[in-house]
Amino acid sequence: MYAVMPPEGVLESRLPNFRATRARVLAAPALGARFAQILLQIAADGGMEKPRCDSLQHFLYVVEGAAELVLDGATHRLTPGQYAYVPVACAFRLRAADGAATEVMWIQKPYQRLDGVAAPAPFVGDAANVAAVCKHTEGRTWQHLLPDELGFDFAVNILAFEPGNYFPMVETHVMEHGLYMLEGQGMYLLQDQWHECWAKDFIYMAPFCPQFFYATGWSRAAYLLYKDVNRDVAF
Amino acid sequence: MYAVMPPEGVLESRLPNFRATRARVLAAPALGARFAQILLQIAADGGMEKPRCDSLQHFLYVVEGAAELVLDGATHRLTPGQYAYVPVACAFRLRAADGAATEVMWIQKPYQRLDGVAAPAPFVGDAANVAAVCKHTEGRTWQHLLPDELGFDFAVNILAFEPGNYFPMVETHVMEHGLYMLEGQGMYLLQDQWHECWAKDFIYMAPFCPQFFYATGWSRAAYLLYKDVNRDVAF
Amino acid sequence: MYAVMPPEGVLESRLPNFRATRARVLAAPALGARFAQILLQIAADGGMEKPRCDSLQHFLYVVEGAAELVLDGATHRLTPGQYAYVPVACAFRLRAADGAATEVMWIQKPYQRLDGVAAPAPFVGDAANVAAVCKHTEGRTWQHLLPDELGFDFAVNILAFEPGNYFPMVETHVMEHGLYMLEGQGMYLLQDQWHECWAKDFIYMAPFCPQFFYATGWSRAAYLLYKDVNRDVAF
Amino acid sequence: MYAVMPPEGVLESRLPNFRATRARVLAAPALGARFAQILLQIAADGGMEKPRCDSLQHFLYVVEGAAELVLDGATHRLTPGQYAYVPVACAFRLRAADGAATEVMWIQKPYQRLDGVAAPAPFVGDAANVAAVCKHTEGRTWQHLLPDELGFDFAVNILAFEPGNYFPMVETHVMEHGLYMLEGQGMYLLQDQWHECWAKDFIYMAPFCPQFFYATGWSRAAYLLYKDVNRDVAF
Amino acid sequence: MYAVMPPEGVLESRLPNFRATRARVLAAPALGARFAQILLQIAADGGMEKPRCDSLQHFLYVVEGAAELVLDGATHRLTPGQYAYVPVACAFRLRAADGAATEVMWIQKPYQRLDGVAAPAPFVGDAANVAAVCKHTEGRTWQHLLPDELGFDFAVNILAFEPGNYFPMVETHVMEHGLYMLEGQGMYLLQDQWHECWAKDFIYMAPFCPQFFYATGWSRAAYLLYKDVNRDVAF
Amino acid sequence: MYAVMPPEGVLESRLPNFRATRARVLAAPALGARFAQILLQIAADGGMEKPRCDSLQHFLYVVEGAAELVLDGATHRLTPGQYAYVPVACAFRLRAADGAATEVMWIQKPYQRLDGVAAPAPFVGDAANVAAVCKHTEGRTWQHLLPDELGFDFAVNILAFEPGNYFPMVETHVMEHGLYMLEGQGMYLLQDQWHECWAKDFIYMAPFCPQFFYATGWSRAAYLLYKDVNRDVAF
Amino acid sequence: MYAVMPPEGVLESRLPNFRATRARVLAAPALGARFAQILLQIAADGGMEKPRCDSLQHFLYVVEGAAELVLDGATHRLTPGQYAYVPVACAFRLRAADGAATEVMWIQKPYQRLDGVAAPAPFVGDAANVAAVCKHTEGRTWQHLLPDELGFDFAVNILAFEPGNYFPMVETHVMEHGLYMLEGQGMYLLQDQWHECWAKDFIYMAPFCPQFFYATGWSRAAYLLYKDVNRDVAF
Amino acid sequence: MYAVMPPEGVLESRLPNFRATRARVLAAPALGARFAQILLQIAADGGMEKPRCDSLQHFLYVVEGAAELVLDGATHRLTPGQYAYVPVACAFRLRAADGAATEVMWIQKPYQRLDGVAAPAPFVGDAANVAAVCKHTEGRTWQHLLPDELGFDFAVNILAFEPGNYFPMVETHVMEHGLYMLEGQGMYLLQDQWHECWAKDFIYMAPFCPQFFYATGWSRAAYLLYKDVNRDVAF
Repeated sequence: MYAVMPPEGVLESRLPNFRATRARVLAAPALGARFAQILLQIAADGGMEKPRCDSLQHFLYVVEGAAELVLDGATHRLTPGQYAYVPVACAFRLRAADGAATEVMWIQKPYQRLDGVAAPAPFVGDAANVAAVCKHTEGRTWQHLLPDELGFDFAVNILAFEPGNYFPMVETHVMEHGLYMLEGQGMYLLQDQWHECWAKDFIYMAPFCPQFFYATGWSRAAYLLYKDVNRDVAF
Repeated sequence: MYAVMPPEGVLESRLPNFRATRARVLAAPALGARFAQILLQIAADGGMEKPRCDSLQHFLYVVEGAAELVLDGATHRLTPGQYAYVPVACAFRLRAADGAATEVMWIQKPYQRLDGVAAPAPFVGDAANVAAVCKHTEGRTWQHLLPDELGFDFAVNILAFEPGNYFPMVETHVMEHGLYMLEGQGMYLLQDQWHECWAKDFIYMAPFCPQFFYATGWSRAAYLLYKDVNRDVAF
Repeated sequence: MYAVMPPEGVLESRLPNFRATRARVLAAPALGARFAQILLQIAADGGMEKPRCDSLQHFLYVVEGAAELVLDGATHRLTPGQYAYVPVACAFRLRAADGAATEVMWIQKPYQRLDGVAAPAPFVGDAANVAAVCKHTEGRTWQHLLPDELGFDFAVNILAFEPGNYFPMVETHVMEHGLYMLEGQGMYLLQDQWHECWAKDFIYMAPFCPQFFYATGWSRAAYLLYKDVNRDVAF
Repeated sequence: MYAVMPPEGVLESRLPNFRATRARVLAAPALGARFAQILLQIAADGGMEKPRCDSLQHFLYVVEGAAELVLDGATHRLTPGQYAYVPVACAFRLRAADGAATEVMWIQKPYQRLDGVAAPAPFVGDAANVAAVCKHTEGRTWQHLLPDELGFDFAVNILAFEPGNYFPMVETHVMEHGLYMLEGQGMYLLQDQWHECWAKDFIYMAPFCPQFFYATGWSRAAYLLYKDVNRDVAF
Repeated sequence: MYAVMPPEGVLESRLPNFRATRARVLAAPALGARFAQILLQIAADGGMEKPRCDSLQHFLYVVEGAAELVLDGATHRLTPGQYAYVPVACAFRLRAADGAATEVMWIQKPYQRLDGVAAPAPFVGDAANVAAVCKHTEGRTWQHLLPDELGFDFAVNILAFEPGNYFPMVETHVMEHGLYMLEGQGMYLLQDQWHECWAKDFIYMAPFCPQFFYATGWSRAAYLLYKDVNRDVAF
Repeated sequence: MYAVMPPEGVLESRLPNFRATRARVLAAPALGARFAQILLQIAADGGMEKPRCDSLQHFLYVVEGAAELVLDGATHRLTPGQYAYVPVACAFRLRAADGAATEVMWIQKPYQRLDGVAAPAPFVGDAANVAAVCKHTEGRTWQHLLPDELGFDFAVNILAFEPGNYFPMVETHVMEHGLYMLEGQGMYLLQDQWHECWAKDFIYMAPFCPQFFYATGWSRAAYLLYKDVNRDVAF
Repeated sequence: MYAVMPPEGVLESRLPNFRATRARVLAAPALGARFAQILLQIAADGGMEKPRCDSLQHFLYVVEGAAELVLDGATHRLTPGQYAYVPVACAFRLRAADGAATEVMWIQKPYQRLDGVAAPAPFVGDAANVAAVCKHTEGRTWQHLLPDELGFDFAVNILAFEPGNYFPMVETHVMEHGLYMLEGQGMYLLQDQWHECWAKDFIYMAPFCPQFFYATGWSRAAYLLYKDVNRDVAF
Repeated sequence: MYAVMPPEGVLESRLPNFRATRARVLAAPALGARFAQILLQIAADGGMEKPRCDSLQHFLYVVEGAAELVLDGATHRLTPGQYAYVPVACAFRLRAADGAATEVMWIQKPYQRLDGVAAPAPFVGDAANVAAVCKHTEGRTWQHLLPDELGFDFAVNILAFEPGNYFPMVETHVMEHGLYMLEGQGMYLLQDQWHECWAKDFIYMAPFCPQFFYATGWSRAAYLLYKDVNRDVAF
């Protein structure tokens, strides 16, 4: 199962405890997902009306403009490519910074605790400082925005492809994905259908959805990819 | 996922605590919905045998004839276009009025409480008194039958289209819909299939079902539209 | 959603506490159903090894041969067309009678209690004694094997059609069905596909599955039809 | 519902408490299954970092190389075709043996207890010692790797077919399957689609998925088949 | 290849040399057919403006009202079920009779001459006088409106079915068909699609189109069936 | 059979004896059509290099700009909505007028002579002077650009629809169509597929292609429609 | 394009100049083929009423019983597997031999003459005397019933497969095929659909129809295969 | 209509008047094409046995090895990328050169004469000397192997794409294509299906087949493209 969503069709929702903020809900348990992914379009005077502290993990990635994040007591100004990880039960508050609008990708996920492994601490990062690894063939790179530690039960990566590049095979795996096109364009094979996609499209891929990608166009394609990792199969 | 149901095919159910009433169940959790929608066809001597007071919210909209509603101790006579909102744990009793048959659309939904926000009080309204807002292009209007307040976790709107009118894009969103055609006709795109629909058809649209509408025919098309709103993504 | 199952393809299961009995499981929660339906093929010396008394309702309908049923202390010999209703927490034991093999259709369902209405008592019936009602057009009849009382939360009917007969419209409704062809043949429209079916086929129809039937062939067609009734929409 | 997975597309997962081990998750509740099936590719120095003792049953079948299994205190060296059954709450530890890589198929399942029947004890077996039964027609054989006892709530069998052989009918049944092709090739009919498959492919078949197989090629085809058995329908 | 045409959708054509006549062209070489079939709806003062004498064979069957046919010098008054065969180069003229409208089915076909066999002479017949043959199973009959002689290169038959009756198998053959439903209703399998059809529908079936029929409803179904016969394969 | 062609995808062809003219071939015998339809995009200095006189009929309709037509010795200046009919073997020459580009729709068809009826003479017309006939329901009009005479073997009509209007039924008929959207938009049902279309789209409909139209949008929809008429079925 | 025809559905035709003979036309130009293929079922007293001498080539292969063939003046008694080639303009006459019924496969084809190459002479052959060539992999053999000479413009081969055998790739080629299953069974991939086939099925494959075969079952599969060869592409 | 043919599936044909040559027929009138395209695989001692002079135009393009072409009396040695045009009624003879195998793409087409324009003369060319034109966007080039003159009624072009490049729109046009992938890979949209293709694949596209291409992979993609041009629509 999967869903391809061009941005113009994702109607806005209003979320409680936010002001002047349009929320585009891209993935949610109502779609079968075990996480939520929301694009927040925050006006100059918008954002969370008060700090939030709940039983979910949160991942915040700035897409446009600048956001002010109060996290665990400290205040951060985040610009495009910068991001934050918020563990369970950790207070945070997100607002537009600089008196200007901002756009933030927000991922929410319950945490699967692992015996003997500490839960991760909150932190702020910058994709600009994350090495781009070229694992297999030339022209495709991975950036792992979260540390490769067992404490994390999900990963968020930026995958980038030179025009024409593609995966070595059709993948089918237990991990589910939220994919947000950051730049460029391509052809996605999902189950047994081809879909053209462009920057700002969102794709949800359920566990075991066959998937494959060709980057197309005149410039590199890149996307932000959520996946769940590092845990035993849940019953 | 979605379902299109012409009225003649929706077999009647018998509900407990009703007399002389045919219930056409249009949406229910058995279909995957998080609400229920039922068309009640109440004979002259029919309706609820006793007041009902349960753990659900209720919305009642009179489609034909006149209904007598006892709500929170007061008695109302409701005619087509008039409606009532019944919060959780509030007693109400619905019967045919005037010794004649009536038809009432009934929506049921569990309530998602919001910290710091009071649950709405019961009330009675009349679509004839609700302003028709023209948000985007000429020829399409919205009537919001429930107040635009955070206390409500669902909305019921009447959308009306002049012949030929349509939405500006295919929509895909987290909200689910129960749609009851009040008048006119049109073409509905659901997922990737076109469906012709006419007055009295019902359509269920699951969360993230792509959707689009063209009004057709010689007169305006209008439908009563349920959607869930104002809450965080539920896990 | 629906499933059509010709008899030769339904592999046998072995059930605990049975001896010399092949169980053909036709519907089960694993298929999404809220009931189970099992064809028991009991050898001459087979059947339940001891009385069963559990938290489900049971309906037993003899298809071939003769069965011995101990129900609530009394012993019954049931032949084709005879049946029994077993309420929750009522002991019963089913075995082949007369030292010969028998075939029994077994329906299981959790009970949805109704405030102020007593649960039904166990009883034994015979389709031969149940009036065949002709509700709409000539050539189609209904036999209601269970009393038309609110205490029952499901119904089991025998519908019979003269060759060529059909329903007046495509039906779509909240009730789910287990359908066992008793005799004859026909064409079933399910969702948007036509299926030919013959005596001994089984069809599962999920809630809101569009459905329609044409009887065909040289003799009448009849089927045993389970449906859930008489209860409010469950959340 | 079903899924066909060629091996090259099943991405590896990292499981907690394993070292130097790639886990290919083939079936899991995220796919709708009520069991999990994982191909472990264990490097020479890899395997479980400590004994595991949990609330699941485990079945381990060596596909390549040799594995060292500590089970209930005893140490076993298992080679291809050898396998172990581990009941609930029984400690075991799996590692590569002989300082060389190994490949082990791992099945996990919650246990459905049966009143009055003891749960099975742990044991180690060898497919080479299990009789190949020819039940119906010549050229097809079954090996039952687990004893045919009611205590077991699942079975694992090796089915083998001479070239050209096939089942006598399309099967549709309540049991779900995890199928791992051990050798040869064939055509699988699943629902209403034909799929070619070869050694090392994995197929998940949900309950009531219609299924049929033709062995093709120049040599016999064989697969390892999981199914759930011996229990009442679960509500 | 085939085409199913309900009568309301077959737009009228105007044919040269006719007056006050609507022609519904049902089959023609433009559809791939090697014959033409036209329903003539002739007003009270309508019909052919002059005798016609061309290089085609003609078959005329009165469906409604009464027609006046001048054939080979003689004048005939034809009523429903009466018909005429007109060989190549034989003059005829068709008009409404009795000053009232009439409906006539008209088949046109080039003639394939056979060495040593005389072409048929013109004649007039009446279906009421043609024996209904029951070839295979009870409840299905054939009437052969043309003599069973090698001189004819096509046949026109009336097939009638009691409700529920059907063919013994799916047929695939070199003959092409024009089928006009005279009464009743049924389900036609064409290629791999089921089509419901009723009196007055027309179906074109190309050579080698797989075909099958179930009669449905409360009364017998009958159709007028054209097919080409008695000739060697044409190159 | 049918084909829907948005204008941007119809590549230009170069035709002999034209200069500075891009020809968009929309229908041709290579598509199975028995006529040709070509959109000529003629530059300011472009058009036919010399008079053309051939064995085809021609119909020329100016879509944009102004065209100079020398027809049968006379020179005409044609502006949008003006058109000319050119019979077989009649010389004509088409060029851009006024030193500016023009766009002309060109239909070509062999002529089917009718015994005793004279072939039409050349003429020039103007859609602005052709009455708009409202045949059936309000809001739909026909303009017949060619005289309703038996001499013509094809017709060219302008059909216009108020928003929401539609045909009374799905049509299936022997006539083939070339349809050029002049203004507005709509939904076309062709065979069993819905197609959205807008001004400047072209649709080819083969004989017996089922067809239906809903006008949509905020303004009237109109198209130029070719069809073949007035002749016996051709063998 | 292709067609699969099980034998029971191929209605019989009556051919001129035959007596007591049912002709099952399997391929013909009406299907798009450039040859004809007919199964003749000749009763004990049946066959050609007189010698035939026409402008076609003929190939006759006895399937069952014994046939008497008068060819070019000589009389032959042909039994299953024996066959005859009849060139253009060569007289022959086929009848049942021995006063018993016979079944003969008959192929007809116009001849494409080749400059400088003599047309083949008539001859009679026996498949039992034709070497079975194993060209590629073990378990598949070819028998070429006609000499491998340029004079022939078609070939007829018997291909045989051990169970499980298959072609090395999906073939797509300019040659067309008439395929008659002589024995065994298999799975045929045609275009993109799988078809099960058994002895006596016929398959027509048009030029460039993708094709592939798996033999299945317990015994070898074999078919008689027509193809056109040895000529330049025809315009 | 279209056909995609990977090279391994195109069976070889034997052509008259050739020796030691395998012909892979890729397009032919039997596929509906108005031209033929054949890949000749000529062994060291193979080729035409004598000069050929017929009523077709010929285009010869060397793909591998070296070919000796005697054309209009002169002898040419052609290597990969070199080609020849042979007009109607012009003698030529093609053989392997240098005592080594060669591969030549051969296109055949009847000639459509144009009044007042001379037919082209034979000539030999070299793609290496043909300018690569970049018409629209960067990264895509055209090489026109034949002169852009009205005398030619077909064109053969080499189109090359940098990875990721694509056409600006889906094309639908009257021209038919034979496309031979020379290098690289890509995704072809044909009608409404996506096809992956690689070097050596062949695609036939009928007139009016919708078409679109994305180049993919790590290196440029190029193909040899036949199309018919410069003529009036043919009736």
